[in-house]
Amino acid sequence: MPGNSFGTLFKITTWGESHGPAIGLIIDGCPAGLRISEKDIQKELDRRKPGQNALTSPRKEKDKAEILSGIFEGKTTGSPISLLIQNADARSKDYKKLKDLYRPSHADFTYDAKYGFRDHRGGGRASARETAARVAGGAIARKIIPRVTFKTTLISPDMKTIEKIKKEGDSVGGLLECVIQNVPAGLGSPVFEKLDARLAQVMLSIPGVKGFEIGSGFKCVDMKGSEHNDELLVKNGKVMTKTNHAGGIVGGISNGMGIVFRVAFKPTASITKKQQTVDQKGNKKTVKIEGRHDPCIALRALPIVEAMAALVLADEYLIQKTIR
Amino acid sequence: MPGNSFGTLFKITTWGESHGPAIGLIIDGCPAGLRISEKDIQKELDRRKPGQNALTSPRKEKDKAEILSGIFEGKTTGSPISLLIQNADARSKDYKKLKDLYRPSHADFTYDAKYGFRDHRGGGRASARETAARVAGGAIARKIIPRVTFKTTLISPDMKTIEKIKKEGDSVGGLLECVIQNVPAGLGSPVFEKLDARLAQVMLSIPGVKGFEIGSGFKCVDMKGSEHNDELLVKNGKVMTKTNHAGGIVGGISNGMGIVFRVAFKPTASITKKQQTVDQKGNKKTVKIEGRHDPCIALRALPIVEAMAALVLADEYLIQKTIR
Amino acid sequence: MPGNSFGTLFKITTWGESHGPAIGLIIDGCPAGLRISEKDIQKELDRRKPGQNALTSPRKEKDKAEILSGIFEGKTTGSPISLLIQNADARSKDYKKLKDLYRPSHADFTYDAKYGFRDHRGGGRASARETAARVAGGAIARKIIPRVTFKTTLISPDMKTIEKIKKEGDSVGGLLECVIQNVPAGLGSPVFEKLDARLAQVMLSIPGVKGFEIGSGFKCVDMKGSEHNDELLVKNGKVMTKTNHAGGIVGGISNGMGIVFRVAFKPTASITKKQQTVDQKGNKKTVKIEGRHDPCIALRALPIVEAMAALVLADEYLIQKTIR
Amino acid sequence: MPGNSFGTLFKITTWGESHGPAIGLIIDGCPAGLRISEKDIQKELDRRKPGQNALTSPRKEKDKAEILSGIFEGKTTGSPISLLIQNADARSKDYKKLKDLYRPSHADFTYDAKYGFRDHRGGGRASARETAARVAGGAIARKIIPRVTFKTTLISPDMKTIEKIKKEGDSVGGLLECVIQNVPAGLGSPVFEKLDARLAQVMLSIPGVKGFEIGSGFKCVDMKGSEHNDELLVKNGKVMTKTNHAGGIVGGISNGMGIVFRVAFKPTASITKKQQTVDQKGNKKTVKIEGRHDPCIALRALPIVEAMAALVLADEYLIQKTIR
Repeated sequence: MPGNSFGTLFKITTWGESHGPAIGLIIDGCPAGLRISEKDIQKELDRRKPGQNALTSPRKEKDKAEILSGIFEGKTTGSPISLLIQNADARSKDYKKLKDLYRPSHADFTYDAKYGFRDHRGGGRASARETAARVAGGAIARKIIPRVTFKTTLISPDMKTIEKIKKEGDSVGGLLECVIQNVPAGLGSPVFEKLDARLAQVMLSIPGVKGFEIGSGFKCVDMKGSEHNDELLVKNGKVMTKTNHAGGIVGGISNGMGIVFRVAFKPTASITKKQQTVDQKGNKKTVKIEGRHDPCIALRALPIVEAMAALVLADEYLIQKTIR
Repeated sequence: MPGNSFGTLFKITTWGESHGPAIGLIIDGCPAGLRISEKDIQKELDRRKPGQNALTSPRKEKDKAEILSGIFEGKTTGSPISLLIQNADARSKDYKKLKDLYRPSHADFTYDAKYGFRDHRGGGRASARETAARVAGGAIARKIIPRVTFKTTLISPDMKTIEKIKKEGDSVGGLLECVIQNVPAGLGSPVFEKLDARLAQVMLSIPGVKGFEIGSGFKCVDMKGSEHNDELLVKNGKVMTKTNHAGGIVGGISNGMGIVFRVAFKPTASITKKQQTVDQKGNKKTVKIEGRHDPCIALRALPIVEAMAALVLADEYLIQKTIR
Repeated sequence: MPGNSFGTLFKITTWGESHGPAIGLIIDGCPAGLRISEKDIQKELDRRKPGQNALTSPRKEKDKAEILSGIFEGKTTGSPISLLIQNADARSKDYKKLKDLYRPSHADFTYDAKYGFRDHRGGGRASARETAARVAGGAIARKIIPRVTFKTTLISPDMKTIEKIKKEGDSVGGLLECVIQNVPAGLGSPVFEKLDARLAQVMLSIPGVKGFEIGSGFKCVDMKGSEHNDELLVKNGKVMTKTNHAGGIVGGISNGMGIVFRVAFKPTASITKKQQTVDQKGNKKTVKIEGRHDPCIALRALPIVEAMAALVLADEYLIQKTIR
Repeated sequence: MPGNSFGTLFKITTWGESHGPAIGLIIDGCPAGLRISEKDIQKELDRRKPGQNALTSPRKEKDKAEILSGIFEGKTTGSPISLLIQNADARSKDYKKLKDLYRPSHADFTYDAKYGFRDHRGGGRASARETAARVAGGAIARKIIPRVTFKTTLISPDMKTIEKIKKEGDSVGGLLECVIQNVPAGLGSPVFEKLDARLAQVMLSIPGVKGFEIGSGFKCVDMKGSEHNDELLVKNGKVMTKTNHAGGIVGGISNGMGIVFRVAFKPTASITKKQQTVDQKGNKKTVKIEGRHDPCIALRALPIVEAMAALVLADEYLIQKTIR
């Protein structure tokens, strides 16, 4: 599969470039009879929308998702759900002078290496704009697993630090922690599609992510088994663990405890400071990136992380219906 | 897909339980005309084999892969390659007394939650034994990308520490770093199937893995863009980067630099120290796990990490043939 | 997969209902660098368009495909190609009185059985309108295999018969024969994805198709091996067969001869003659279907048959690049 | 996907060549907790086994399936089920003299065109021997849909004709009709994965099949809508149709009536009569095929047709669990 789809049964496909007329998505495999409104979707899109505060990109997008198919009289029909989000405020000309340059830590060179050429306007498909489609998809996924709750927090730099770095024309990384509650035990599978393996994939599929860890994460490296093992007990008739080093998943399958994972975001690659680079012909060049960019992409990524997790859980929820 | 397969074009499916008659794998999608011998496969299997030194499980397995199909007169035919590895030394009775117990940090409870019951012998499908099939598959994958080299190192506890912890009846975690050289620029894709996202998935699919990071990894969180960005230059006619915080992948696509990632393994869950737990009926129990277990699973995982990376790269190599 | 996608590497997903705001499609996996214009797509859409002559449905649709993504400066970028076709002339009210009725030989009852309810307007997803999206996708597929030619002919009822039957308020079936030339030898695969098996699938996926046969087809049943076998010879340095009972495919793989198959279309289910049926509650009802319908759906299906064949061949063409 | 797998949720992968050590299959996605014994599988394999009467190939195979994984204490565990069937009586030397020849209407030339070379022993992967694996898989699929019954009949040449043709060193085609009862309404899906489209695919995937038709089939071509439409009625509280021209499937979805389809098998390509052909170098040759071959492959195909239909229905049964 060419990589623009995700999911086995609850399947999202996203399309669209940052500076084309629109972006969008298709959800195929959504069960019939679920109540979904444009408002439900808008709520999630609004959390991600640029231009919300001083620290997010001032690009103005209404980011309004139109439902084009799959929903009839407020309910899903079982047919593919097509959503379209217009690209209202795309200033292609900002990018013209970057046409032949390879911006450091952007996907310019790698796209050329892969495809032989590229749509240079605003990163094309590599743009974070694509993630709006994922957030809309996640809003639908949540309807499959209505009891599940998501809470994501930026646990690294405070707002002041970000503001200061922004003024320097620079950017900074960020660490998000996501806690998911009320996931039933039994979701996921034992080998390649372990629940944590799927979460790792979708988190690393978010632009700018350099690391994923679950439960004890990288700290487990220095722990002993006798410290790390989560002993079991029964509480209110439910099997639980005393500690949760596992992060809610054992052997690739959820155990009913909270799912806890962390995601590391690199600093925004677009900075206004001068950088050395080369152009397509291999000539040395200096680049200073203008335009509208977030100083800390992690700040905008909270609803994206949750959307991706919701897509995985919705898919696994449907898969589990076929197991027993 | 039910999760025992991985790959789009170069596809591996593994089967078999720890204590059944055999385990095995199918590779579907291997190009025709590649020279492959049982010796090529054995070389990788031998790196993973238990019982090699004082610190790995003394279970004795010949771990010999028999080729049952897909190879004719030493060459792949384009048909599915079926490999079978006999389970020579499986002592099911070691596990009988654990039948109704949920071992802490083992997949006993989660399998029951998922499937309604389980094959309790040695972890069944959750056993690390399944990874022998992956290693055999990786040996074939390497034939697709013969110039690519893999070097994996345990960069956390030294052998003495492990030995000491073993004597205590305990276990310890481990951190592996893998460096992959000679990957051509252009492998991977922009959205859900980013090369690093796929690596994250397959690494987290290895039993006991709690974290994955690439390039700068979790350190990126505290870095500024001006520090983290990898400036480009041309050397010997090849586009390169001065630094490699990216870890060889930008925008989900390889840039021709070394791919560098780290994988965190938790301490072995099977320890001989006493632990509290419950049984299937919810009764409190004390468990002391006998049997043959590695004190540090990371030590045995080196060829598994490389096999999984090779499977991803072989798949992406074939996919790239269809892009331009 | 939920069934709205087709293809392994060159993958089409269609969406949209007959009476929603629009229908559309995504092509994922189209190689980068192909020249494609809206005109190329329009040419195929125009062949399918309703309202072209006295014998096709008078519903007026401009059937104009807008390119929303994946094409930049006239060339495919390797990103998903999203096309949208507005539904201009959808008279939902024609269908209101049929809301609770199960029209004979329509998908009304089966949709209710599957989904619990249905979008009753014009057949929703079951409408032949969905095939416009396929035709647009086929136009792109042809770019992958530019030397391949398609010729499809209605080989059953003549225009006069159809006209006469139409006047009776009735409809009639039709038989199409499709001949595909210049397919290179070697496309297809040996087992479940035989080239003829895939053609059979896509032809039966066209609304109203009841049969598929290739080469000798059903006549082979009464033939002897000595009559049916296609002897081989060499002509102008190319291996060919004297006869072509195979229809261009042997063992699931193309042999370089013309691919010849036939597809049987049932008579249009929508007729103005009175019919007995039941409603959702099981009450006996009489139905007389008004509205705009083709008397012979096979007549409109020529470009659909070719589009579906092109989708299969483009996909197989890309797959073959990975085999040797 | 490379074509040796079939199914979305209930997935079969077959492997093995006619003249290798064994053939086999994996079922991935079988629900946990189903009772399955080797006897259940053997019963179906015995129906297909060669050497049963004067009119089937005298090759002697025990065709005994060994269960290697996925079944524990008589019940499926939810893990992949691996079955292996030894190739007992494979006389490779029969084929040595055919090594460089292209047998008429065999896959010799097309395999060379696809893969660059081939395993010439007995057709390799193209051999009907591969279908034993399908039959074993079908036996497991039936467990998912235990109430569904299959009845397949050879409705073309009688035994006497076949016997006579065999004596001439020739072969003959055959027509099978399959009637499936007790399929619940609602299986299948509306677009590319219509239930009849999937049946068409799997039937054409059986070696030697040249045509598939459902319900009225090719006869529909000359029928009027008023004759062909199946009027609805309610009988014992169940929605039914008066006639069954649909063959049990409307709009790609089962309607609860009997599913009725027909499959055309070509005459066996292996005949002892002299034939003209060419070799790999393009030289004219004469070939006379010795060895053990069925005069009418349709005769042996009854359990294969049923197995393939069972695989489709089991898969759709599981898919339907995720729709509502």
